[in-house]
Amino acid sequence: MTEAVPRLGIGMVGYAFMGVAHSQAWRNAPRFFDLPMRPDMAVVAGRDEAAVNAAASKLGWSSAETDWKALVSRDDVDLVDICTPGDTHAEIAIAALEAGKHVLCEKPLANSVQEAEAMVRAAQASTGTAMVGFTYRRVPAVQLARTLVADGRIGTVRHVRAQYLQDWIADPQAPLSWRLDKQKAGSGALGDIGAHVVDLAQFVTGESVTGVSAVLETFVKERPVADSFGGLHGTSSGTETGPVTVDDAAIFLGRMSGGGLATFEATRFAWGRKNAIRLEINGSHGSLAFDFEDMNVLHYFDATQPAPEAGFRRIVVTEPEHAYVANWWPAGHGLGYEHAFTHQAVDLITAIAEHRQPEPSFADGLVVQRVLAAVEQSAANDSTWTLVQKES
Amino acid sequence: MTEAVPRLGIGMVGYAFMGVAHSQAWRNAPRFFDLPMRPDMAVVAGRDEAAVNAAASKLGWSSAETDWKALVSRDDVDLVDICTPGDTHAEIAIAALEAGKHVLCEKPLANSVQEAEAMVRAAQASTGTAMVGFTYRRVPAVQLARTLVADGRIGTVRHVRAQYLQDWIADPQAPLSWRLDKQKAGSGALGDIGAHVVDLAQFVTGESVTGVSAVLETFVKERPVADSFGGLHGTSSGTETGPVTVDDAAIFLGRMSGGGLATFEATRFAWGRKNAIRLEINGSHGSLAFDFEDMNVLHYFDATQPAPEAGFRRIVVTEPEHAYVANWWPAGHGLGYEHAFTHQAVDLITAIAEHRQPEPSFADGLVVQRVLAAVEQSAANDSTWTLVQKES
Amino acid sequence: MTEAVPRLGIGMVGYAFMGVAHSQAWRNAPRFFDLPMRPDMAVVAGRDEAAVNAAASKLGWSSAETDWKALVSRDDVDLVDICTPGDTHAEIAIAALEAGKHVLCEKPLANSVQEAEAMVRAAQASTGTAMVGFTYRRVPAVQLARTLVADGRIGTVRHVRAQYLQDWIADPQAPLSWRLDKQKAGSGALGDIGAHVVDLAQFVTGESVTGVSAVLETFVKERPVADSFGGLHGTSSGTETGPVTVDDAAIFLGRMSGGGLATFEATRFAWGRKNAIRLEINGSHGSLAFDFEDMNVLHYFDATQPAPEAGFRRIVVTEPEHAYVANWWPAGHGLGYEHAFTHQAVDLITAIAEHRQPEPSFADGLVVQRVLAAVEQSAANDSTWTLVQKES
Amino acid sequence: MTEAVPRLGIGMVGYAFMGVAHSQAWRNAPRFFDLPMRPDMAVVAGRDEAAVNAAASKLGWSSAETDWKALVSRDDVDLVDICTPGDTHAEIAIAALEAGKHVLCEKPLANSVQEAEAMVRAAQASTGTAMVGFTYRRVPAVQLARTLVADGRIGTVRHVRAQYLQDWIADPQAPLSWRLDKQKAGSGALGDIGAHVVDLAQFVTGESVTGVSAVLETFVKERPVADSFGGLHGTSSGTETGPVTVDDAAIFLGRMSGGGLATFEATRFAWGRKNAIRLEINGSHGSLAFDFEDMNVLHYFDATQPAPEAGFRRIVVTEPEHAYVANWWPAGHGLGYEHAFTHQAVDLITAIAEHRQPEPSFADGLVVQRVLAAVEQSAANDSTWTLVQKES
Repeated sequence: MTEAVPRLGIGMVGYAFMGVAHSQAWRNAPRFFDLPMRPDMAVVAGRDEAAVNAAASKLGWSSAETDWKALVSRDDVDLVDICTPGDTHAEIAIAALEAGKHVLCEKPLANSVQEAEAMVRAAQASTGTAMVGFTYRRVPAVQLARTLVADGRIGTVRHVRAQYLQDWIADPQAPLSWRLDKQKAGSGALGDIGAHVVDLAQFVTGESVTGVSAVLETFVKERPVADSFGGLHGTSSGTETGPVTVDDAAIFLGRMSGGGLATFEATRFAWGRKNAIRLEINGSHGSLAFDFEDMNVLHYFDATQPAPEAGFRRIVVTEPEHAYVANWWPAGHGLGYEHAFTHQAVDLITAIAEHRQPEPSFADGLVVQRVLAAVEQSAANDSTWTLVQKES
Repeated sequence: MTEAVPRLGIGMVGYAFMGVAHSQAWRNAPRFFDLPMRPDMAVVAGRDEAAVNAAASKLGWSSAETDWKALVSRDDVDLVDICTPGDTHAEIAIAALEAGKHVLCEKPLANSVQEAEAMVRAAQASTGTAMVGFTYRRVPAVQLARTLVADGRIGTVRHVRAQYLQDWIADPQAPLSWRLDKQKAGSGALGDIGAHVVDLAQFVTGESVTGVSAVLETFVKERPVADSFGGLHGTSSGTETGPVTVDDAAIFLGRMSGGGLATFEATRFAWGRKNAIRLEINGSHGSLAFDFEDMNVLHYFDATQPAPEAGFRRIVVTEPEHAYVANWWPAGHGLGYEHAFTHQAVDLITAIAEHRQPEPSFADGLVVQRVLAAVEQSAANDSTWTLVQKES
Repeated sequence: MTEAVPRLGIGMVGYAFMGVAHSQAWRNAPRFFDLPMRPDMAVVAGRDEAAVNAAASKLGWSSAETDWKALVSRDDVDLVDICTPGDTHAEIAIAALEAGKHVLCEKPLANSVQEAEAMVRAAQASTGTAMVGFTYRRVPAVQLARTLVADGRIGTVRHVRAQYLQDWIADPQAPLSWRLDKQKAGSGALGDIGAHVVDLAQFVTGESVTGVSAVLETFVKERPVADSFGGLHGTSSGTETGPVTVDDAAIFLGRMSGGGLATFEATRFAWGRKNAIRLEINGSHGSLAFDFEDMNVLHYFDATQPAPEAGFRRIVVTEPEHAYVANWWPAGHGLGYEHAFTHQAVDLITAIAEHRQPEPSFADGLVVQRVLAAVEQSAANDSTWTLVQKES
Repeated sequence: MTEAVPRLGIGMVGYAFMGVAHSQAWRNAPRFFDLPMRPDMAVVAGRDEAAVNAAASKLGWSSAETDWKALVSRDDVDLVDICTPGDTHAEIAIAALEAGKHVLCEKPLANSVQEAEAMVRAAQASTGTAMVGFTYRRVPAVQLARTLVADGRIGTVRHVRAQYLQDWIADPQAPLSWRLDKQKAGSGALGDIGAHVVDLAQFVTGESVTGVSAVLETFVKERPVADSFGGLHGTSSGTETGPVTVDDAAIFLGRMSGGGLATFEATRFAWGRKNAIRLEINGSHGSLAFDFEDMNVLHYFDATQPAPEAGFRRIVVTEPEHAYVANWWPAGHGLGYEHAFTHQAVDLITAIAEHRQPEPSFADGLVVQRVLAAVEQSAANDSTWTLVQKES
């Protein structure tokens, strides 16, 4: 990397799971991609001074702040990377955009449509570039899926089957964490993982969800209070319990803007499914299937082939022609979870350098937020349901 | 088979796809199983004399009738096996039951709840035994799934994911057949294949669906008229078209009686999925997954095992201990589609001999019919849906 | 079936596992296929009078004999179907052929090359038609594999990977049966299951194995003596043990006549693999993969497709265009183990009616026998092996 | 990372495919693991000054040298990381060890047993720690396999099935590269990828290969000369061709020291298999199966479970209890190819800090080298083969 490449100062707020993933992306992007700007990991912010200092050292940030407002106001910060819980997204993002900073904001964009709308307005008014972190879009197999649909290779979309299945709180003894607190997280499985599959369904089909019919459920209503945090959910050693205030699972039907039907499911209660993001799309002359548990693979059925030779093709998406792949390893040497974050960093840096709006924009995030809001509204509405007649 | 075993005279109405499968069952059952009664393939009925005679000869029936009423009234017929389209089920079944015959009726039980209720009443009033043909229950892997749930091996059911995916009319040029005619078939994918997954979901969980939220869709509203029939759907050579009067696809959410959530999908528009009956169930301490495309296999996740060693177990359901299997081949020498029909025949003959009501009874068929009716009602109801807010 | 179709009287020798499968084939073939001759299940032979009578009744044979010679000499027997252990094949087959009967002989053709050669000579001298029962050739997915290779769809064969993996004697307490007795069975895994994969490799590639390098192993040298027989291997309740006189496993390299390399493996010690017949072939511009554990599927990789879209295609081999399939069920309604026997009966009956030599002929069986003999010779030869140098 | 952690100066020789992977490891290790020493990427060496300077900048090395000897003699280099072709390994490694440096040497250890022996002697004589880069050992699923075998969970090893299948030169127009040049690479598929599966088979079983029977083949003997290099193999635009002097494929049988049988296959001609490292092991009471194409998964069959519930368990090896995983992401968020290099760096740094010999040592690399030598010797020996008898 020559000095001729301009610097892009990064300030990251939050350094837990998402912060670690984002740090990895900023560090790795310039090592594998030729970037038009050089990301400089200037500063990380967090409320606990000792902890944020340790994180800065561990993750490779040059300095630390205990107040995100200080971070936003620093001259050496050109881009504010928001990795905090959803309840803080709007305030930080709007402040950053008003300060003329670029913003990368983790998903879901916000905890409400109102916040999300304010964020979109702030993005429109700002000289900064704003992007929301629907990272899974940048898995090469998902990119290939998008390309095949966009190229008409499966025709008109008839069916979308989108599931995000996890099991990390299927055990009733799994402790409470901020992700189970409505105040912090806004919603549970719906916003945390359902948001991803709504976005993926819309991204891959190039369509939007126009209507929903939904049910939300909280299977385990009381859980042990966590006394330490780490990884995704922390641990609990005491006997104190507290209420789960978010949904454990969300299932909903959707109607796509192109006339197709969709089923969505987001749950943390699917024992044995660890991070199974499944997307299956049937079109008028082909089908696609993806499962993040086998993330380097896309299955494609081409109905224009003669029937006796047709079959779902298991495409190992590690060829140099596939999105992002040429910058990594030879064919068959698969990528992992974190690579999508690096791709996100690459795309954002490139868009900033080229003065383009990268996808997904805050407006794209708002579209997802509106679907989530409709899901909540539908789930709260009794007339969504038709009872099955009892024995007469 | 010694002469001491009493004879059970079988009369079958209809000899198309289902008739061929049932004939194979009656012929094969005594060759592999020691039965308490000897099925005697006495007579088959169909309207076209030449065709029904040819079918009798081909399929191994001793005689033929052109009027089902004649078949029902014959003294050498103890059991009437109904393999005709759904619009005729009620009339034939009720007549047979009133004549004191046993009845095996293909699914769906009827084309309406009213008909199904009348059939249940007839079954209750009759000395005959009545059973409905939800054959897939008798796939050994499905039996194992039922046993594991009943034995508490997955705990309380949290999620049911039930899909029946086919692609045989995904091509808009696939011709009209009676299965696309509401008058004959009652409904489309919903009754033809959706009925199977509703029954399977209820059978395997031991629960019932208490409420639904649904959408039905007909993607291709006009099709070529078929000029010959064969296999599942016939062929068309002319230019005449006619309307499709049934649903191409049905998707619906369900609430299970035990508090779990269910998603259902039945479609004939899933390119590349030929007969993919998929059932995935997540319980409070385990999960199950089945796909008829790999019909001799059940996947089972036992959450009580230590996490680092836990995983979905791919059980090849061909061990002698598995239901029905000891009567067939050694382990690993898998069964096919038709074997479930043989198992059905075995179970029905045994129940008749033992004067027991076999499952699934007409009452079980009615339960499914009521779910299908609720699906149609929900799909017709605008307030099932919540629209996603447009850009403000 | 009209009376105009000539009768083909069948006499079957042996009625254990293979006898049951063959009986099912003779019974079913005319029900699903339009045959040029009508198989008449005239007589079954076995040494134990009570048992053979019971088997005749159960399996649908019109009469029974306790001496196979009596069966061979009967006028109502046109075809002798040999389902006995390998040590009896030559004598029965030669006698039948000398009597002008057609012969279907289970594999392996014989227990030695000498016997097999004598059988080939008898077949050449006879007016009868002779065929050896390499049944797996008639699985539709295997037929498709053969067709794709023959049509040049994978180019020149580079690699063959052929495995037949079972686990039925992996448990050292599994009892002795005739299959573990060299006198009866000739060899162990090699002849019983290795023969199948040698034949499949040659059949699908259209090539022959020209040289081998092999090792045979008997892991468990002493086993409990069985006191009852049933299924594949019987049970043991006593404490008496006896020696295993055949190989438990055979592994060998092979050179194909077209210049490709082959690896073969046949074992009954692969825990968890029940009847895993795996065939993977890499050619100069494509690949094929088959596993009998998913018998209705063939995987095909077409290297002429653009790399970013290429992938192994999972072809569900249940389309009407696939071999034999149109006579059975609609797409996706898979076949089972026994169907290949029905296909074998259909092909043999058709060839006899058309005065053609069906494949695989006794000569084809001899080719396999010679490969097995070379394997045994190689395994007995110390200079096959190169020792890895020890620490110096 | 506090200053109290001692520095470990790294000097890397070579910066192509392996150099990029190793650089990523040195950079990432301290970000995810708490290391007892701090790796300092001091210097990279390469012959082309401009290229090595660019690589240093891109990959994050503080300086560059054009002579590896200069690198070895630098005081700020504590560890020499050898990422060059095999013909240079011995010279560089011995010089580094004689200079008291630690050494990490890419596999295969050398191009001959003689060189490897000299390297082992140098390692024994040195104060430096020496390790060979059989990186795939450090895939978490492979670690789990090793642990299960070591814990007796599959019992005595009966069968090893080890394959390394690629397709990158299956196309005859794929250009020559150093990997196809015997002078540079020593051997072809055998040393490049076969070495990996020999090591994996020995590592996971804890046994050694004691004898082999082998064949090597070069299918395409002449190829276009590459005019540019990049990724794994470079591109060619001209018409000049040159000879392939290494094997395209190696297949061999092996005898394991515990009495089990092994089959090995290494090929670059398996169309559709991109980096399919497959290891399947059958023991006396269990089995394991791994395929790098699904690298975060291990399949385990436990034969001590009741037969009707037994099945290969698909363990998603992403739980915190699995080796290395707790330092990365939550369950289900899979790792990629490069992570194994990071794990290798972590283990080597830790061993150096603890003054322990890490595995695999140069002696372990020599064991593999001797197997490769025996393979070459066997392949050159006519009496390895037994010809199949022709038609008499």
